[in-house]
Amino acid sequence: MTLKIGVIGTGAIGREHIKRISKKLAGAEIVAVTDVNQQLAKQVVEQFQLNAIAYPDDKTLIANENVDAVLVTSWGPAHKGSVLKAIEHGKYVFCEKPLATTAEDCMEIINAEINYGKRLVQVGFMRRYDKGYVQMKEAIDQKIIGEPLMIRCAHRNVSVDENYTTDMAVVDTLIHEIDILHWLVNDDYQSVQVFYPKKTRNALETLRDPQIFLIETRSGIAITAEVFVNCKYGYDIQCEIIGEEGIVKLPEVPSIVVRKDAQLGVNLLTDWKDRFVDAYDIEIQDFIDSVSEKGEPQGPTSWDGYIAAVTADVCVKAQQSGQKEEIILGEKPDFYKNLQQA
Amino acid sequence: MTLKIGVIGTGAIGREHIKRISKKLAGAEIVAVTDVNQQLAKQVVEQFQLNAIAYPDDKTLIANENVDAVLVTSWGPAHKGSVLKAIEHGKYVFCEKPLATTAEDCMEIINAEINYGKRLVQVGFMRRYDKGYVQMKEAIDQKIIGEPLMIRCAHRNVSVDENYTTDMAVVDTLIHEIDILHWLVNDDYQSVQVFYPKKTRNALETLRDPQIFLIETRSGIAITAEVFVNCKYGYDIQCEIIGEEGIVKLPEVPSIVVRKDAQLGVNLLTDWKDRFVDAYDIEIQDFIDSVSEKGEPQGPTSWDGYIAAVTADVCVKAQQSGQKEEIILGEKPDFYKNLQQA
Amino acid sequence: MTLKIGVIGTGAIGREHIKRISKKLAGAEIVAVTDVNQQLAKQVVEQFQLNAIAYPDDKTLIANENVDAVLVTSWGPAHKGSVLKAIEHGKYVFCEKPLATTAEDCMEIINAEINYGKRLVQVGFMRRYDKGYVQMKEAIDQKIIGEPLMIRCAHRNVSVDENYTTDMAVVDTLIHEIDILHWLVNDDYQSVQVFYPKKTRNALETLRDPQIFLIETRSGIAITAEVFVNCKYGYDIQCEIIGEEGIVKLPEVPSIVVRKDAQLGVNLLTDWKDRFVDAYDIEIQDFIDSVSEKGEPQGPTSWDGYIAAVTADVCVKAQQSGQKEEIILGEKPDFYKNLQQA
Amino acid sequence: MTLKIGVIGTGAIGREHIKRISKKLAGAEIVAVTDVNQQLAKQVVEQFQLNAIAYPDDKTLIANENVDAVLVTSWGPAHKGSVLKAIEHGKYVFCEKPLATTAEDCMEIINAEINYGKRLVQVGFMRRYDKGYVQMKEAIDQKIIGEPLMIRCAHRNVSVDENYTTDMAVVDTLIHEIDILHWLVNDDYQSVQVFYPKKTRNALETLRDPQIFLIETRSGIAITAEVFVNCKYGYDIQCEIIGEEGIVKLPEVPSIVVRKDAQLGVNLLTDWKDRFVDAYDIEIQDFIDSVSEKGEPQGPTSWDGYIAAVTADVCVKAQQSGQKEEIILGEKPDFYKNLQQA
Repeated sequence: MTLKIGVIGTGAIGREHIKRISKKLAGAEIVAVTDVNQQLAKQVVEQFQLNAIAYPDDKTLIANENVDAVLVTSWGPAHKGSVLKAIEHGKYVFCEKPLATTAEDCMEIINAEINYGKRLVQVGFMRRYDKGYVQMKEAIDQKIIGEPLMIRCAHRNVSVDENYTTDMAVVDTLIHEIDILHWLVNDDYQSVQVFYPKKTRNALETLRDPQIFLIETRSGIAITAEVFVNCKYGYDIQCEIIGEEGIVKLPEVPSIVVRKDAQLGVNLLTDWKDRFVDAYDIEIQDFIDSVSEKGEPQGPTSWDGYIAAVTADVCVKAQQSGQKEEIILGEKPDFYKNLQQA
Repeated sequence: MTLKIGVIGTGAIGREHIKRISKKLAGAEIVAVTDVNQQLAKQVVEQFQLNAIAYPDDKTLIANENVDAVLVTSWGPAHKGSVLKAIEHGKYVFCEKPLATTAEDCMEIINAEINYGKRLVQVGFMRRYDKGYVQMKEAIDQKIIGEPLMIRCAHRNVSVDENYTTDMAVVDTLIHEIDILHWLVNDDYQSVQVFYPKKTRNALETLRDPQIFLIETRSGIAITAEVFVNCKYGYDIQCEIIGEEGIVKLPEVPSIVVRKDAQLGVNLLTDWKDRFVDAYDIEIQDFIDSVSEKGEPQGPTSWDGYIAAVTADVCVKAQQSGQKEEIILGEKPDFYKNLQQA
Repeated sequence: MTLKIGVIGTGAIGREHIKRISKKLAGAEIVAVTDVNQQLAKQVVEQFQLNAIAYPDDKTLIANENVDAVLVTSWGPAHKGSVLKAIEHGKYVFCEKPLATTAEDCMEIINAEINYGKRLVQVGFMRRYDKGYVQMKEAIDQKIIGEPLMIRCAHRNVSVDENYTTDMAVVDTLIHEIDILHWLVNDDYQSVQVFYPKKTRNALETLRDPQIFLIETRSGIAITAEVFVNCKYGYDIQCEIIGEEGIVKLPEVPSIVVRKDAQLGVNLLTDWKDRFVDAYDIEIQDFIDSVSEKGEPQGPTSWDGYIAAVTADVCVKAQQSGQKEEIILGEKPDFYKNLQQA
Repeated sequence: MTLKIGVIGTGAIGREHIKRISKKLAGAEIVAVTDVNQQLAKQVVEQFQLNAIAYPDDKTLIANENVDAVLVTSWGPAHKGSVLKAIEHGKYVFCEKPLATTAEDCMEIINAEINYGKRLVQVGFMRRYDKGYVQMKEAIDQKIIGEPLMIRCAHRNVSVDENYTTDMAVVDTLIHEIDILHWLVNDDYQSVQVFYPKKTRNALETLRDPQIFLIETRSGIAITAEVFVNCKYGYDIQCEIIGEEGIVKLPEVPSIVVRKDAQLGVNLLTDWKDRFVDAYDIEIQDFIDSVSEKGEPQGPTSWDGYIAAVTADVCVKAQQSGQKEEIILGEKPDFYKNLQQA
């Protein structure tokens, strides 16, 4: 009953998941690893004392009969190839975001999956497993606040390194809001416009920081999404949905309350890795359980990966044009409409 | 030492101030009243047992030697005439918003005041006396959060009556944010663009509700100001300023904390009159004290009234055009630059 | 219609009230002052530019026909004499706590007031005018939390000076809880026991600090009241009432919310004078208005002053004995039962 | 590397742990079960599709070579026997509270463990693995609030069934506070006194509810611990530690924040099982990891079980006597002093 997993890409995030699966979660075993750096793959086997084989490439790993499912945790441009190969062999795939680097490539994966005739792929948008977002989703679905009209959210990092460029505010940062927001309100995106507030002096010369994305959905919900990656004070994810009858807001990260030095305060996180650590655990456990027990994953689909890719493309275009840009998705295939989702 | 005040306009807000001055505040006395409805003015004298004369019009009230200062609480279109007459007679004026209904009329008042050679006029933007906003202003001035980069604010009413039209979202509602925000960040407005989110079904057919105003300042601060006047859940004023080093946010209205029925909650207001009642008291007391002790008011100036009028005009234009519209203020006269302000 | 007030005792609290009445409140005028230090009384007249006479003693001040009401703000041991003289002359009295320094003296005042046949005296327990406590009282009276069963409260000061002795934790500090708690729950005290937790090293050798008072009411409500006068972190008044159906808690002092340096926090007060400044204003305005409009004060009565005195005596006894001590009040006179109270 | 676990007692809590180990956690396998109801044990094997043998009794289960560690989740009176047998066979034991039903029996286990010469036993006090308590512990150990002087805590349940008796407020409810508080402040208990506030009408006739325990530690920390098991409004665990320099307080359970119907609120739990679900997971994972990797458990020891038993006994005595009762522990054996603890 143990799910046998092969990991493609043993960099930081790959090792995190290997550790998670072998040390914290139930029902799965790492039986195979591979990396473009073969030496690294071998080291990982030793480091975590895995009963696993280091394969020379994704192709041989995927093809091996002993492998039930693969985790794609290589760098973005390599995702598509691995996912397509996995589908070809009928293997389950958990693919870290992005599913692929272009909308066209995502569509190729979608077509492959539809042709295969069975859902195999889950995309790694972990926020859907965060307890706060799950509570928000439930509240919205139960019409606690009536119809959603507006969303205000913010994604703030303490700082970023010198390689972080303006478009990464979309593809690395806003991408998580892109996935979670349409899911929260059961809607699709229609258009986006980007505004650049006064630039913080704490960002590099070349980086626009902060940025505000004004995104509209098909039903007219107005989303103001702030990305501020050198905010200095903490790693802070805010999300508030304003509906016809009320408002629902993501909780603050729980923390002891301290009264000291004429202040009453709680701690904020500074490291993004601490924010969704529980969500990562729940996400991977859900992948393991769904595949093992129901024969297909239940998390974000290839179509969700495609939505993210299309929307991110248009957001980057809007960053450059300064204009309101349309987001054109096409019709959701029936294949994905009929899925049972978590 | 008692300031002798004449009140022009004895409608709801006029009576509120009469009650305030005669029953709650120190240092002033209502000695004169007038209203277009002369019967009403006389009733007010009786109702509050004032030792005051009901004059036939603003002109005779202002001209009377016994009157040191006037409160202009008539309807908006009548403000300009009363304020100009008061300046002509060298009387102090506390004028409820708007100072005048057009930017040109405000400028006429400004020129009259400059020509008179002494500051006489205070405009009734009471939020500057709200303890929360005052604390925010102090924090910003002390650079607690570094340079302000963005402001997120919301002005929400439970509901409005059937006479409330889309442009009133600016001239009656957003007008308070217009005044307070430039004061908070010591900046001037540059442009505004309006967005209409999905409309709430709780608003009348003809009213756009909610609305989002994206206002930029000269230095580049990006303000997203929501107006939502049928929000149903409460009267709620939110304001958050995001700076280079941190964020400062207006406090919630204090309330007992109740644990009951699986909820931990505080009460929200529903009536706007309860929100700034303390601010109104402090505002009028400050007008009385400043005039009595320093010989001139210290609150919002005619120039602030002009800023509000110009900005409101452009906001209404932007409501109609859907485009980004420029806000052109002209240079602040030296007369107002040199004032000592509270 | 202006209430003419004489002030007996022009020390710190006396001057505060003089300033309040002449600069912030409506409907009263300081017409007379006196102090054991006659020079000080005269200085006060000048300092606040009062249109008032400095009398040589309380007797002549009270006797003067021009004086409608007196404020007793002398030191505690002098209160009784002034209050009795005022009653004798049928003058209204606002007496700062304590009404008198012993229960017997309070009873003498009570008898004098009953004999005079009309309520004249209000004792200066300002917390009853604090908005938070008023909201708590309303919630309890409306049975929001059902029958109260327990109260947890704390009275914390940053620090005290070297003259502060262990019994002052009762007579200067806990005295405010003593007054407010029986009022909040409409009950009388039955017994008290004192516990001394580990002593803070921030207190002087001779001072027991903190202290915990376990007070029981006649109906069995258990109150745990902490007094901690060298708590260092702030001036903090906490009160929470646990009832059969829920809990109600005093709000924190409102403050802007700051996110900075990995902390999300609000400011706490450090100076006790800032905590109840609004309550003092409302209290004195209520005294003025009630006396002027209804012909008698509505705030805490002489009987409340007596309850405080009796209870404080027993608390001090319990501090010394370490035992549970009974609080014996006697029956509340009908005179006080029938009063209309705010 | 997989820890092979036998479960003694397959009632509710036993099944919870079986599910946890087989479905959520890593590194362990259920290989054996037993229950006084042998039928039940067999059903559990089927229900969870365990690769496990149902043994006739604890003795044979423990003796089996295939079993590395046992979970004792039978009813309290049976714990001692199973734990002693496990020690005899050198098997690791995770024993749900209580370790044994009397202090003497706990001491017998302690002596057995010391004689065996190696730590084998962990007692199931899961709160030590709750993130909020862990943060409090860190803050205290880092002297954030200076020396602890007082603790205020509360343990509140919505309601209890008709079998819940007054002493169960200690042995079933307060027992968790007994374990966690001495751990938080690194101190031992000295005495306890019980107070009975006014009784809620929502409790059965025969049950004293609420109750207040005033517990003092050796160093003089004063703990006021409220137990209120028919509080109606929610399942609520409160803990606040007042130190010389500040206060630290357990966080509220995180929840979305809702503005609706003139209320700003968060949800409270009503079911105790939801409160510490994460702590249970972390606790059992830590037992598995510590035993597997370090060769001994790191959680609460037999000595902690003994402290709980002694203290609970005295608390029950104090419930009955109404007097202050001494808690006499004896000296902690060196064996337990020298342990490496989590």
